[in-house]
Amino acid sequence: MDKMKFLVAGGDSRQTYLAQRLAREKAKVFTYGLDSANKAQRCTVLTELSQMAEQADVLVLPLVSSADGKSATAPFLDQDIPFAALADCLKAGALVVGGRISEQTAEFFESRGFAVADYFLREELMVKNCIPTAEGALQIAMEELPITISGARVLITGFGRVARATARIFTAVDAQVTVCARKYADLAWAELYGFVPMHISQIGEKISKFDLVINTIPAMVLNHGILAKLDKKSLVIDLASKPGGVDFETARQLDLKAIWALSLPGKVAPVTSGEIIAETVINMLLERGVRL
Amino acid sequence: MDKMKFLVAGGDSRQTYLAQRLAREKAKVFTYGLDSANKAQRCTVLTELSQMAEQADVLVLPLVSSADGKSATAPFLDQDIPFAALADCLKAGALVVGGRISEQTAEFFESRGFAVADYFLREELMVKNCIPTAEGALQIAMEELPITISGARVLITGFGRVARATARIFTAVDAQVTVCARKYADLAWAELYGFVPMHISQIGEKISKFDLVINTIPAMVLNHGILAKLDKKSLVIDLASKPGGVDFETARQLDLKAIWALSLPGKVAPVTSGEIIAETVINMLLERGVRL
Amino acid sequence: MDKMKFLVAGGDSRQTYLAQRLAREKAKVFTYGLDSANKAQRCTVLTELSQMAEQADVLVLPLVSSADGKSATAPFLDQDIPFAALADCLKAGALVVGGRISEQTAEFFESRGFAVADYFLREELMVKNCIPTAEGALQIAMEELPITISGARVLITGFGRVARATARIFTAVDAQVTVCARKYADLAWAELYGFVPMHISQIGEKISKFDLVINTIPAMVLNHGILAKLDKKSLVIDLASKPGGVDFETARQLDLKAIWALSLPGKVAPVTSGEIIAETVINMLLERGVRL
Amino acid sequence: MDKMKFLVAGGDSRQTYLAQRLAREKAKVFTYGLDSANKAQRCTVLTELSQMAEQADVLVLPLVSSADGKSATAPFLDQDIPFAALADCLKAGALVVGGRISEQTAEFFESRGFAVADYFLREELMVKNCIPTAEGALQIAMEELPITISGARVLITGFGRVARATARIFTAVDAQVTVCARKYADLAWAELYGFVPMHISQIGEKISKFDLVINTIPAMVLNHGILAKLDKKSLVIDLASKPGGVDFETARQLDLKAIWALSLPGKVAPVTSGEIIAETVINMLLERGVRL
Repeated sequence: MDKMKFLVAGGDSRQTYLAQRLAREKAKVFTYGLDSANKAQRCTVLTELSQMAEQADVLVLPLVSSADGKSATAPFLDQDIPFAALADCLKAGALVVGGRISEQTAEFFESRGFAVADYFLREELMVKNCIPTAEGALQIAMEELPITISGARVLITGFGRVARATARIFTAVDAQVTVCARKYADLAWAELYGFVPMHISQIGEKISKFDLVINTIPAMVLNHGILAKLDKKSLVIDLASKPGGVDFETARQLDLKAIWALSLPGKVAPVTSGEIIAETVINMLLERGVRL
Repeated sequence: MDKMKFLVAGGDSRQTYLAQRLAREKAKVFTYGLDSANKAQRCTVLTELSQMAEQADVLVLPLVSSADGKSATAPFLDQDIPFAALADCLKAGALVVGGRISEQTAEFFESRGFAVADYFLREELMVKNCIPTAEGALQIAMEELPITISGARVLITGFGRVARATARIFTAVDAQVTVCARKYADLAWAELYGFVPMHISQIGEKISKFDLVINTIPAMVLNHGILAKLDKKSLVIDLASKPGGVDFETARQLDLKAIWALSLPGKVAPVTSGEIIAETVINMLLERGVRL
Repeated sequence: MDKMKFLVAGGDSRQTYLAQRLAREKAKVFTYGLDSANKAQRCTVLTELSQMAEQADVLVLPLVSSADGKSATAPFLDQDIPFAALADCLKAGALVVGGRISEQTAEFFESRGFAVADYFLREELMVKNCIPTAEGALQIAMEELPITISGARVLITGFGRVARATARIFTAVDAQVTVCARKYADLAWAELYGFVPMHISQIGEKISKFDLVINTIPAMVLNHGILAKLDKKSLVIDLASKPGGVDFETARQLDLKAIWALSLPGKVAPVTSGEIIAETVINMLLERGVRL
Repeated sequence: MDKMKFLVAGGDSRQTYLAQRLAREKAKVFTYGLDSANKAQRCTVLTELSQMAEQADVLVLPLVSSADGKSATAPFLDQDIPFAALADCLKAGALVVGGRISEQTAEFFESRGFAVADYFLREELMVKNCIPTAEGALQIAMEELPITISGARVLITGFGRVARATARIFTAVDAQVTVCARKYADLAWAELYGFVPMHISQIGEKISKFDLVINTIPAMVLNHGILAKLDKKSLVIDLASKPGGVDFETARQLDLKAIWALSLPGKVAPVTSGEIIAETVINMLLERGVRL
């Protein structure tokens, strides 16, 4: 069988590591519009799309595929890359993958007979991204707290993906981790994993005993009333996306140190982050019957 | 507030520990028909139901509540305990809890105005029972294998509750644990927890490399074709309920050691097992607004 | 370079696994007087020493090399193997290794120009043997206690090799492990490893709170006064060799379950045990400049 | 019994936390010359030594007790504190403790009838300091490496106190940790703790495979020849004191990132650091028969 051909176009440094990771499989990888200072190894780096002699089986768009639904985001180029130019580099029926693909973007490619899929909707990517997120939270805690994490009293609110990974890493470095959740089954899991379980109804009563509070619930959990009970020396890290779960304005007024840590994977571990996307793309191909 | 009154009637040794665990809360606990050789501490042990001066708020039936839908199983008595006699000891509107409650049993109590609930359907009980199950599997492995578990190559099929707890404990004692599942998100979780992930499509190809195979999938995973590839010195433990997942007849013919380990919690840790049920009953009351 | 030639003579089932492990290196391994029902794979099994065509570079004697200083212990033969017959199978200047080599045994071989070394005096063997010992202690605890090890309150006396490995494995399976020692530096290590440190002066005051007490100190630590304070349901395991550290007579009178668990490695993991000796012999050769 | 009286004089922020920690015991704690911006809680803060109404049982000098053998280092005051003034605040026969006490300092106090002891020579302090050191190394690795520590290939040279604690924390966060040492017993311990053992003779052959190399040996281990074989993307952290173990000049020429991380406890965790000293002082008193 011929090697699969990938065109990786646009995006930040993670796409370079994604391209390198794909090139470690049986695959031929072309890149365009990536960081020119950090060339993707084992890949064919194009300076013009017209240099592409062969047509690609798979087009890999960036994490935020497009700002306008017409072109791929390309911060390392002067301007974004028009989808039309990318489409010309693809085989008929090729697969287009990207992150946070808008309806408009999907329509552009699907109307031209390409298959479109979003790697950011894949659960295994979300799970794998929990590791750099948890490590990022640990790094912030280490940088901000004047005590060792070993022995620190840490409260984690919620017990979804990010909370589990974060509770696990803080426990691993010998913090005393309490997990606060609503469902008794979640509390049973927390206990099984060695965390102290705490029903969410007790948060107000017990919040003052923690050196570090990490929120993972995207709803206002750490509101004025709760923050007011916190020890002044404690640190708050919010890992929840979108609305967040911490009243930062109140935290500021109370002189509490509170940090909203978003998009940690790309910040703390761009190499691993890019590799995680590559591995997810490989799984997407496997499910379509293609083994690299 | 008055102390809650419990009547714990029938069942095996776990009910004794259940009763003792309830008595550690603010509660008054009566027992009837339990093991007379191992009296429940801090409980009022009745030798006749007629000795019960007060009426109970909660009746706790055994794990298999009833064999005939008319009486509570009572292996330590000459005969099972008629539901009618138990109903006479309850307050109006009392709660009746038990395990694997049949329709007929539920109807008996509900038609008399009692609330009925099955603690065996509670997810937190199933999660908590995974710990004694996993410990039981480890104990069997230690007893049967002539090698240390540290360094042993262990394959666990499936990634449900029991598989997660079992993979965790074997990893904790330094086995090399591979988890075999179908969904990529499960494999991502397995990797996050430090297990080697393996897609189930590879089981035939790789099965010969393991010292121990633990099945948790209730479907014929370890069939003739797979068992035939196993190393003759390896051990198979099946933790899957109902149909199981191992072709034991083939294992016998191939002279493979294969053990179907069912109902481990009651066997390896009856005390903890009884306490888990008690804690589940306490949660059930909390959800009904009753804090002991 | 020619392959090294080993003659493994006498001993119990561990010597079979030792021979197999050596044969996995670049080495030619002859065996004599081992278990005939369980032939060492990849080895040349001799039924008479006279069948040995080549002379060996290394003679491996059993764990207890000799009962009389004149012959190698050989429980699988009708009688022990005379050293003189073994010496005839060796090259001039060959190395003789064995366990617990007596002065008389050493003299026999040294006076004939052979080098003699005891693998049982090697520290790495003692360290490696701590794993099967700790696993054996865990197995006993699982078999004897009616509670899960997860959550069990375990006291370990001493902080030598065996104590460290045992505290580690019980902590790994989520027991609450307290380590009791005299030196503050040992207590600091215990804390670093996640165990609760307790100065030995407090043992009398706190002993009643444990479900399991594991002694590793070869001196009478668990004497009458201490045992009398133990909870009647608790279990005592003594891992200390020679005089032991538990007053078993008092334990019997108090109806306490106390188990003296000696020589666990050979009992719970004879395969691993034999391999540990083989790896130690390989190190001994490395130190003499011989790489297999 | 009367409360013990402590005078904590001079030093950096750690002495504040030390004083606070002592004050949590049954003790009366006076401080002089500490950070005025961060007052030690539960302590009596003196602005002049003459304010001290009572005489102290114990004088606690800073980590580096004295620069000149005549006065206590006091970076928060305009000038160091003359020993003579401090001696006037002590009971006859009081205990003077400090870190890195010089002969001249010891002689000053001993000649006046005081007992003198160095807490920096205590092994439990060295052990406890390994935790902030290991956390500091992890923090640096997280900050400098573009990959997750989970999955990173880490080599640790040496197997003393710092190496053990560092190997443990990196393993806890799922790095693949190899320990490189000379003694086979150390390698056996490394393996028991779940690290990959590697004899130091193999370092040249295998060094290129690591993402991170952490040296703990105070001798030139990572010399020109070894550094030249390192992957250019890998990171070197030197935790060894005094001469260090990395040829930093060569590292610079090779464009390798190499960091000499000294005195991490005071930098990454001043609170814990001060508490560790306080706990050591408490032990020193216990050994003199004084329980706070």
